[in-house]
Formats: sequence, C-alpha cells, structure tokens
Amino acid sequence: MGALMRSTTIGSYLIQRLEEEGLKHVFGIPGDYVLRFYDMLSSSRMQVIGTCTEAAAGFAADAYARVNGLGAVCVTYCVGGLNALNAIAGAYAEKSPVILISGAPGLSERDRSPLLHHKVRDFDTQRRIFEAVTVASAALENPRTAAQEIDDTIAACVRYKRPVYIEIPRDMVDQPCKAAPRRRAVPVVSDPAVLAEALQEASAMLRKAKRPVILAGVEVHRFGLQGALLKLVERSGYPVASTLLGKSVISEVHPQYLGVYEGAVGLDHVRRTVESADALLILGAFLTDIDLGLFTARLDEGRCIHAGDERISISHHRFEHVTMAEFITGLSRAPIGRRRRAVRIRRPTPRAYTAQGRRAITVARFFERINSFLDHSTIVICDIGDSLFGAADLTIHKRTEFISPAYYTSMGFAVPASIGAQVNNRRLRPIIFVGDGAFQMTGQELSTAVKHGLNPIVFVLNNKGYTTERFIHEGPYNDIHDWAYHLMPQLLRGGWGCEVNTEGDLENALSLALANKRSFSIINVHLDKYDRSNALERLATRLGTRVQHSSQKKVRKK
Amino acid sequence: MGALMRSTTIGSYLIQRLEEEGLKHVFGIPGDYVLRFYDMLSSSRMQVIGTCTEAAAGFAADAYARVNGLGAVCVTYCVGGLNALNAIAGAYAEKSPVILISGAPGLSERDRSPLLHHKVRDFDTQRRIFEAVTVASAALENPRTAAQEIDDTIAACVRYKRPVYIEIPRDMVDQPCKAAPRRRAVPVVSDPAVLAEALQEASAMLRKAKRPVILAGVEVHRFGLQGALLKLVERSGYPVASTLLGKSVISEVHPQYLGVYEGAVGLDHVRRTVESADALLILGAFLTDIDLGLFTARLDEGRCIHAGDERISISHHRFEHVTMAEFITGLSRAPIGRRRRAVRIRRPTPRAYTAQGRRAITVARFFERINSFLDHSTIVICDIGDSLFGAADLTIHKRTEFISPAYYTSMGFAVPASIGAQVNNRRLRPIIFVGDGAFQMTGQELSTAVKHGLNPIVFVLNNKGYTTERFIHEGPYNDIHDWAYHLMPQLLRGGWGCEVNTEGDLENALSLALANKRSFSIINVHLDKYDRSNALERLATRLGTRVQHSSQKKVRKK
Repeated sequence: MGALMRSTTIGSYLIQRLEEEGLKHVFGIPGDYVLRFYDMLSSSRMQVIGTCTEAAAGFAADAYARVNGLGAVCVTYCVGGLNALNAIAGAYAEKSPVILISGAPGLSERDRSPLLHHKVRDFDTQRRIFEAVTVASAALENPRTAAQEIDDTIAACVRYKRPVYIEIPRDMVDQPCKAAPRRRAVPVVSDPAVLAEALQEASAMLRKAKRPVILAGVEVHRFGLQGALLKLVERSGYPVASTLLGKSVISEVHPQYLGVYEGAVGLDHVRRTVESADALLILGAFLTDIDLGLFTARLDEGRCIHAGDERISISHHRFEHVTMAEFITGLSRAPIGRRRRAVRIRRPTPRAYTAQGRRAITVARFFERINSFLDHSTIVICDIGDSLFGAADLTIHKRTEFISPAYYTSMGFAVPASIGAQVNNRRLRPIIFVGDGAFQMTGQELSTAVKHGLNPIVFVLNNKGYTTERFIHEGPYNDIHDWAYHLMPQLLRGGWGCEVNTEGDLENALSLALANKRSFSIINVHLDKYDRSNALERLATRLGTRVQHSSQKKVRKK
Repeated sequence: MGALMRSTTIGSYLIQRLEEEGLKHVFGIPGDYVLRFYDMLSSSRMQVIGTCTEAAAGFAADAYARVNGLGAVCVTYCVGGLNALNAIAGAYAEKSPVILISGAPGLSERDRSPLLHHKVRDFDTQRRIFEAVTVASAALENPRTAAQEIDDTIAACVRYKRPVYIEIPRDMVDQPCKAAPRRRAVPVVSDPAVLAEALQEASAMLRKAKRPVILAGVEVHRFGLQGALLKLVERSGYPVASTLLGKSVISEVHPQYLGVYEGAVGLDHVRRTVESADALLILGAFLTDIDLGLFTARLDEGRCIHAGDERISISHHRFEHVTMAEFITGLSRAPIGRRRRAVRIRRPTPRAYTAQGRRAITVARFFERINSFLDHSTIVICDIGDSLFGAADLTIHKRTEFISPAYYTSMGFAVPASIGAQVNNRRLRPIIFVGDGAFQMTGQELSTAVKHGLNPIVFVLNNKGYTTERFIHEGPYNDIHDWAYHLMPQLLRGGWGCEVNTEGDLENALSLALANKRSFSIINVHLDKYDRSNALERLATRLGTRVQHSSQKKVRKK
C-alpha cells in the first residue's frame, strides 16, 4: 500500500483534485491567511477570477457550478468566508455543487496569540457556521488524513450536488502529505426489488391514465438526467411542464413542452393542464412555495408520482432505496403506454410585437419584445422580483439556458452569476434581467466583466423601488434611490450604456447592445413605479387583491 | 402581579424597548417576512435607514452603536440575515452592541409547506448560525415569554457590548403579549475583598515604579469609562498610549498622550516608552495581533497590570469577580503616586507641510497634509489596509472620533459606517480613508448618503490593488480594476468628485470638498502601486523585508 502512495503537499493535492474534477476557474478574493494557496492557484492550470466582493464570488461559483457541474470559491478567513455565506446557503437550498475553500490562521500561531485578526470567537467558529449550510466540511489540520478528507469532501459535493467547506490553515499548505490511491466512489444503486415494485406500480398508474403529465424540476439537470427525461417524454408522448427553478431543464421549443407551472402565478393553460392531470409524474422538483405559486397550486397528492433525489413516492406511500436515475430510466423502458388524448400545447406564440415608437415601455411589453431577442447564443440570467416573474414566460431555446435562484431568491444574484456562467462558456452571451434594488446590491461586479473581457447585456428594470414588496405591502421603505445605471461604463472605464423610456428607445438599445460585442452593455429601462409583469398581475387577479389598486390608477393617469 | 402587566403585541413591545434604549435609527432592507414589522417601524419614532445591502446595514449599525451606545439592524430571513452576518461577526469581535432583528416565516405556514422561499435547511438554521456570533439570541415564538425574551436579549447586548439576535416570525408580530414590569438590571459588582486586594497590589506596584505608563484600549470607551480614565491619567501624571482599536479613547491633543502603540509598526518613541515601562497599566485593551504590531511587540507580562471586562490580572496572577469600572475608579483614588520622572511626549508635531504643486502625492505626504485638515467638527472613519496604517499617525482631537475595525479588519467597513455615524450626529462630518479594493466592496453605499443628505468626504487611496497583500506576497491576484471613482456622483445623481495626482491637486480638492457642505465629496487619490505609509515602511524596516524592493524601484523611476 505504502508504495502506491504518492508524496505531495496538502495544497498541491487540493489543487490537483480540483483540476481532476474539471475546474478551470476559481472565484474569490485573496487575503493574508490564504495568500500562499493563492500563489499555488495562480501557477496551476486554473484561472483565478477576482471579484469585487466575496458574496459575488459565491454567486459566480454557484452559476459556474450550474453550467459546469462543479464550482469553487476561494477566500480568506471569516471576513472572506462569512461574506460568501449567503451565496453558499443559496447553493445549498437549490442544490448547486460549490466547494468553498477558506484560508485560516496557522496552527502554530494560534497558541502564540489567541487574538489573531479576522477571528470572531473561537478558531472553529467559521467552520461550525458553514456546517449549517454544507453537506460536508473539513479543516485540513492533519497531514496524515488531509488527502482523504479532501477526497471525501469533494465526493460529497459531487454526490449530493450541495456545497462543501474546506479550510486550510496557512501553515498546512506546504505540509507534505500522502495521496492514497483513490477509492472509487461507490455508485448509489437501488434495491432491485423495491425498484421493480415502484416501477410496476407507477407504470400501471400511468398506463391507466387518460391525461398524464410530466412536471420536471431542477434535480433532473443537477443529476445529469436531461437525456433520460427527453427519452421518457418522447417515448410517452406526455406533455411536460417545468417548475420555475427547473425552467429550461428541457428545451422550451420542444413540441411537447407546456410552459412553467407555478399555480395561479403561471400561465393559465399550463395550470389547467397540470392540475387536471389524472397522473402527474413529478421528476426532480422541490415543490417550493414559489413552485406552487405561493400556495395557489392545486395538486392532488393521490394522483402524483414523485421522483427526486431524496424521495420516490406514489400517491400517499413512499419507497426507500430507489434512485431517481434508475427510476426515470426504468420508466422510459416500462410499458407505460403513449398518451392517447392529445393535449393542445398552447405555448405563448410570440405575439406579433410591433414597437410603437413613443409608447412608454411596460414590463409586459418588454418581455414580449425580449422573447424574440433570445436565441441559441444567449443564456438568460435572472434576478429576483418582478424580473423573475416576468421572465418566467420567456421561451428558452436550449437546455439549461435559464439561471435564477428561484427558490432561495437572494437578491443580487444575477450580475455576479453572469460572470461565472460566461467564463465557463464564452460563446454564450448572458442576458441579465435585474431590478434596480438587486442591481444596487452587486452591480459593481460589472467591473469583473470589464477586467475579463466579458460581454453580458444587462437590463435594469428600473421601477425605483422594491416592486414585489410594494405589491404585498407598500411603505416608504420600498422606495430606493434612483441611480443613472446607464453611466456605469463611465465609472468602470468600460462597457456601453443607455436609457430606455419608450418602445422606440428599446429597439435602438437592443440593436446597439447586440452590436457591442466587446464589452458589457447596460440598459436602464425606466418603468412606472406600480407597473408589473403579467405573472404578478395574474397572481393579483387570482388572489383578488386590491393592493395598490387606487394608487396605481393615479400614477397611470399621469 | 397580573394587574401590573400591560397588554401589547410582540411587535409593539419590541419597538417600545428599542425606543426606550435610545435608538433613533434602525438600518436595513425590507423583505416579505419582515414587512409587517417594517410597517410598525416606519410609524414609530425611529427612522428606518434603508441601505443598498444588508452587509452595509450591519456596518452602519455597528458604527452607530459605537457612537450611540447601541445600534440595530432589521432584515429579512436568511437572504437578509446571512448577508449581515459578517458585519455582526465584526461587531462581536470588537465589542460593538448591535441588535440584529430578522423576520422569519410564520409559524402557521411552516407546516403547510416545508419548502418556503429563503429557507436554507431547517427553520432554525439562521438562528443557530447567529448563535455563533452573538451573546444572546431569541426566536419570538411564544407570546407568553416573548416580552421577557426581548428584555433579556437587549440586556445582554447592553451588558456585554456584543451583538444579539432577535427573530420574529411574521405571524407573531401582531400577537398579543404581556409586558411584565421590568426587572432592574442587576448591577455587576466586584467582590469587595478581591477588589481591595487587587487595588492594593496594583497601587504598590505603581507607587514603586519609576516609569509607569498607561495603555488604554477600546473597552474603556465601550463601557463608558473615558471620564474615569481621564481622571486617572491626570491625577497620576502617567503618560498614556492607546491601541489602534482604541485610538481616540482619549483626546490625542491631551498633553500626556503619547500616541498609538502597536509594536514596531507604531511610532518609535511610543514603542520605546511603552516597552521600557517598569509598570504598564493596560486598561480595556484586547491586545490583538494588530495591537501587538504583528508580533513585534515586546511587553514583559511580569510588569503588566491588565484590567479588562473579561479579566483583571497583575503580573502572572489573576483576580476573579472584579469589574474593570471599579478597578479603574478605585485606582484613580488609590495612593499610586505621581510619575516623578517626566516623559518627553514627542507626538509628531505636525511638520510644516508645504504643498509642492507638481510633486506626485504619496501616502506619507497625504497623511501629513490631512493632519491639519482634521478639527473638532470631523470624525475619521478608516477602512482596512494601508489606509488604516497610515491613519494611525493622525492626531484626533476629541474622544472617539476615530472609528475603524482595527481588529476584525473586514474590508469595506468605512463607507457604510460613515452613514451610521453621521445619522447619529449630523454635526460631525465623516472623513473617510478607504483603499480602492475596499471601496469596490461597499462604495455604492454613498447612494444612501445622497438619499439622506449626508456629506462625508471620501478619500479613495487608489493604488490599483491590495497593497498590504502586495507587501506580504505579490501576485497577479493583488491587482484590481481601476475605476473612475471620482465619477460616482454622476452614477448616483448626487455628490461631488475629483482626481488628485499631485500635492497641488490635493490642496484644491481639500478646499472644494470643505466648501461642498451639502453632499458627499469623493476624491480619487492616485498613488504609486508600491507606495506605502510610514507605518508599513517601519514594519518593513523592522522585519528586514525586501519584498517588492526591486519592482518598487522600477516603478518609481518611470
């Protein structure tokens, strides 16, 4: 055994493993406790992408993980790590496999002075905090076990598609360690008897159904089952909807694609088709409150088959020891019959949008226009709020070209996420929809776009406040200061920007932004303070809410 | 007893208690889980100061707490709270009494749908995380105990001068609760016998000493003992130095004030006087690695008397149950004798600075010039890095007019902190020193200055990178993108900005910034990439480092 072990150092081994897992980029900001490891990173085959804040590095790594299959962020102790915590928490909630690497004070210096800078309370405070938002964590304090701990932690990240935490004290980076021959990951497999029973029952239920429907969620993407899903969809002839978090898990121009299901918030025909299904096959969907249209969904558990990474259930009973992968693959081979009664797929056929030059732009008309702006070369990255509700109706052409934190819903995700997505694939141009409130949180990250020659197109949906909150409960705290967002290029010495008030302005902006291939474009889209997307409008109608109704009228009369 | 209880609601009671504790402002960003409470806040006597990010709200509340004695930040669940975590961690490390109030999903909705948006893992994940960085926490889930929990949590914040966490589920805000007559806080008092013995031994040691010196730290300020310190200083005739975190705990124009002690990083005469003391009275100082000049301090424990909130010790033994307040007050009355051998206080008498119009500005000359720019109407707020090292030598006129996270050293503190400090006292004008890297993290918070009519003067010490890190370990990751910082006013539609390359430019900038009383001023001070403050230079000399020496020369030749 000893002969097979290779001598290396803890730092080198960690870098080697990151490279082996296919990472080409690492996001973060250096600091003294992590400088030595940064030095090694910068002489590795990976590129360090420095961001303005650690929070943004976290979001960038999350988006990178969504498109690449794994992402990493490297920061300094506490002041770096704790700033990235919220992004890592979001990656946990939405199952995005991100490795957070943090420097730490050297073990030898901890005795000398218990009060080292960046320390909060105890030396393990940061690690304990991250244990709450990761599936595995390791502090590499022992050269004899470090290589194995690195292997195990990364394996957990890959297995569970959730973040992990690796802390490396600065005096351990160059410590020699032995890399044991790697144990092959034990593949997670189903109990054959349970799998057979679950498949048999599900097949029988589906075979009998007259109006079966598939609802596909984000786990299908995270666990690499998009091919299996497509096979099942095409073989069965079932119509397929997606959740908002799973949006683009299947190409939205597929003839069997219905649209995004989100209860009463989603399009009406999607809601009716999904809710009237006599067998609903829910694959890899979390069914969060947002997926369920803020409690407006009406799904009959008795007619549902759920298959996810954490459970397989049919009607009201549950099966243990069955994997989602084997269940989906099994179903695509099982005698489930083809759907006989055809469903009319009424995806919003892009209305013949004709810009009316002097008409003030609205959220609804904006997204109608944008629908034809998207193509195979774009990836949509969407922030939180009405940007997300509005973008839900867009038609995404390819798989996984819609990225949004639609469950954790942390504002400020989109601009940093676009950095992660585009460094992973420079041929895809990010189209970003972000509210003014969210832009103020992390918009400075366009600086990183300039530094690395990226060219996202950013639409700031500027309604001078927190619109989704106005909708729930209006108050002066929902107003925010109005920036000249289109002047970001002057501040950042790069990029191009303009303002849009009318539909005519929007046409000009779109063609100029498309033509500006060399840098970011930012378009300040001025919207009425009380204007809202069709989706938010649908929710309002459904809830019979009258919130803002009177003030809305007043403003519109102006 | 029942008759004495007043009926109220949980939300109202919390607001009443915040008002009673002297809060006039609360910092934060609303979100749906906290909207109802925001509504109550905005109809209270307190003003809500909305910031661009929750991280900034945390820093603002921290600075507010430092000048006001208590601060509060109010945010939504997880996406809000976790973004403020790093700032709260810093407040913990540096003993700043901040109350973090977070909204949360309603108790009644948690059963209906376990997957509510903003949730990371379990409903108590955020609370458990905050327990690691606070001295007390409460989730107000029980109307019968809520009032008492609010009282206890706030009392812990005031007693320990460290942050606390209060979580209020949205369906509990309007729940009726009973406010019990408040228990008077039990004053923390010393054991008289221990106090007497400690005072006697300390007095004897001080009386015998020929070269006694006082080293004062930040706890003297936090626990309101600045008057007691001054009395002790004046009665004893001892020279007094401060730590960096404690800078301005005593007026720096006091005739007995030596300067900031920080080992070899500090001024040489301060180091020699403190280190050659035959009795060193250390009051309320943490003695962090930065206070100790990054391990260059040479203090003989055998000659030290330490009095802090967490320990009183003399030489190598320790006294329990003695309070810092009673010990300091006791000493000021004890027979400790006056220092006979006078110490020559050689505070840097502001050199006769004459601007040389076309001379390129350097960090050292910049701070020389700034020294005469400060007066009784300014408060210095300093970010991390060479801004802090350089500012250490400035002379602060009044007590507590120097604010910096000199121990936790989280970059991006200064701009948001200035918001907190100035809304507390609008007559004090913040003078901010911030590096370019730190400005990129939180500089957008000048938006909040515009919104609220504040007028800080911001000096961006722009050396195009992380200078302190260059000094330790140079690498490409230390370079950051160069913004046109002076154009922030255009982006934010408010404020005034300019660029400074020479000493002549600086003179113009200073007079124009002084004249611009109505809005923020931002001055982009272009510095050589390898230029550094006198303090960093002293450290380099002391450590015999040669880092950057050759490249530095090259650049300077240009």
